[in-house]
Amino acid sequence: MTMIKPYVMGIDIGGTNTVFGIVDARGHVVASDSIKTRKHANFDDYIKELHDGAERLIKLNDAEGKIQGIGIGAPNANYYTGEIVNPPNLPWGPIIPLAETVSKVFGGIPVAITNDANAAALGEMTYGAARGMKDFIMITLGTGVGSGIVVNGQLVYGHDGNAGELGHVIMKRNNGRICGCGRAGCLEAYCSATGVARTAREFLEIRTEPSMLRNLDIEEITSKDVYDAAMAGDAIAKDVFEYTGKLLGEAIADMIVFSSPQAIILFGGLAKSGELLLRPLQESLEKNIMPIFKGKTKVIISELKESDAAVLGASALGWEAKYRYEAPTTAVSVKHDDDSEKA
Amino acid sequence: MTMIKPYVMGIDIGGTNTVFGIVDARGHVVASDSIKTRKHANFDDYIKELHDGAERLIKLNDAEGKIQGIGIGAPNANYYTGEIVNPPNLPWGPIIPLAETVSKVFGGIPVAITNDANAAALGEMTYGAARGMKDFIMITLGTGVGSGIVVNGQLVYGHDGNAGELGHVIMKRNNGRICGCGRAGCLEAYCSATGVARTAREFLEIRTEPSMLRNLDIEEITSKDVYDAAMAGDAIAKDVFEYTGKLLGEAIADMIVFSSPQAIILFGGLAKSGELLLRPLQESLEKNIMPIFKGKTKVIISELKESDAAVLGASALGWEAKYRYEAPTTAVSVKHDDDSEKA
Repeated sequence: MTMIKPYVMGIDIGGTNTVFGIVDARGHVVASDSIKTRKHANFDDYIKELHDGAERLIKLNDAEGKIQGIGIGAPNANYYTGEIVNPPNLPWGPIIPLAETVSKVFGGIPVAITNDANAAALGEMTYGAARGMKDFIMITLGTGVGSGIVVNGQLVYGHDGNAGELGHVIMKRNNGRICGCGRAGCLEAYCSATGVARTAREFLEIRTEPSMLRNLDIEEITSKDVYDAAMAGDAIAKDVFEYTGKLLGEAIADMIVFSSPQAIILFGGLAKSGELLLRPLQESLEKNIMPIFKGKTKVIISELKESDAAVLGASALGWEAKYRYEAPTTAVSVKHDDDSEKA
Repeated sequence: MTMIKPYVMGIDIGGTNTVFGIVDARGHVVASDSIKTRKHANFDDYIKELHDGAERLIKLNDAEGKIQGIGIGAPNANYYTGEIVNPPNLPWGPIIPLAETVSKVFGGIPVAITNDANAAALGEMTYGAARGMKDFIMITLGTGVGSGIVVNGQLVYGHDGNAGELGHVIMKRNNGRICGCGRAGCLEAYCSATGVARTAREFLEIRTEPSMLRNLDIEEITSKDVYDAAMAGDAIAKDVFEYTGKLLGEAIADMIVFSSPQAIILFGGLAKSGELLLRPLQESLEKNIMPIFKGKTKVIISELKESDAAVLGASALGWEAKYRYEAPTTAVSVKHDDDSEKA
């Protein structure tokens, strides 16, 4: 019988910071620390700093030999291959063998990786608002729009590990905004933090009313600026949230016909806008939802602290991690003069 | 140890016919028969005729006592509750306790039910083009557009049993066609057999070229008429299929970002249009798909004979059926004069 060790390590690789923490079986973050993700242009240097930081944390907390597995959430990380593929904001090349490299430097501890939105969904299911739910969709509203879908209690990875790109359903089939994915009209181009800023710029150009947003450099407006203006009663800024919520409600109505989830959980910077976003979203959802689903799916704003959620979600993956780096054995070829001696 | 019996019964309740068959473990339909679904306004009369027919089939094939379970596919049938809820084309009222009634008349044989599209997906997974696939989407293109979604080798039922209504994603957010679900712009209003007929009527009104479809009563045009005209080279009829395929391709591109399936399987009357539908669909999918999914998902037309598929799919559910009707025991209340005799 293999003893389960008392801790896992959760690692969240973000575009700016990499946060890592030791987590126990009850989801308590025993200790955590972080490094700058983009400090090293070389992947091995980055991994060395991450490993040094993690080992320090392990020693300080008397956790040597007690880490059961390592779970990692990272943009474009593929659960099946253990690789990060074409990450938009990481400097280490198009294909990064993340699981193998991490397991190797940590002496063979099992590693599992998935994308950041899936990790957040796992965190929510294990420690957050989705505890006990078997069917829900996590939507992350950050720089982009990501999603982690849970069906029958399992993350939906799809046949290639890339499922759950709900930020890239098409909301505007005509004259849609260009999206980072190379197409036009994606949900992400409207309902992310950057989408909100784009909507604000569009409204300021098209409309003529005064707005406190006009005091800012129009090209530099952020979703935070729009939020602050809306909270201060600015009409254009409030309309930006109406528009964003309306589109999100339409998109969620279509998601519900797919998997009929018990809840949609909103997570990430923009989700913190609270009622400003949630009220128009709910109104739009109510208006657009197919009748048989009416009133059945809750829309919830995540309860987890964003800093914890990513590490907790990643760590939840650590308990079930299976990939373990094994040092290659040296191949020795011995020539026998006399083959008859073979056993 | 319970012996698994050698047969299951598959029942497909369609708007016109109810087909039922005895199926063995290798998916061979040993024998089948059918009755008219709408002959009886009374549900119990319908069930009696179905039971009589099935028992006759069982006797003729020496299958008495050899039926392991009964699987039923029916419109709006709910896997979890065993009920048909608000069926659009059945005459027996808003809530029909199907699983309970069938198990009761068949002397307690276990029964499982699901909607017709899910049953077709099960048939495809067990006996058809989706054998060995763990992630695929079955789209049924008939009078309506239905779907059965398989993720991680399991049907997606959702938290309430209603998941997989992909005929009701919104394709036209402005000025969309009224749909039977009460909303406007649904995929079903465009890409079903009735949708194709509606498109033909619309094109004939808007456009001025000659068309052999103009020889027909415009209100009576069917998708079969449009198919025949297109095969005979009629330009308007061919454009109807171009339009239908284009919309289906756009819809499928959005489905793929959800669950990244290995295949999309098209089933039902309209799927028999072959290349007429498939070529514009593939072109549209190629043009609209998110780059990371490009070239990964096959679009396949079902290999199963339609008459077999529904019964086979329903029968596949029979092997895992758990609901078993048990006759209530008569409650006997005996009054004791002397309570001290209690054990």
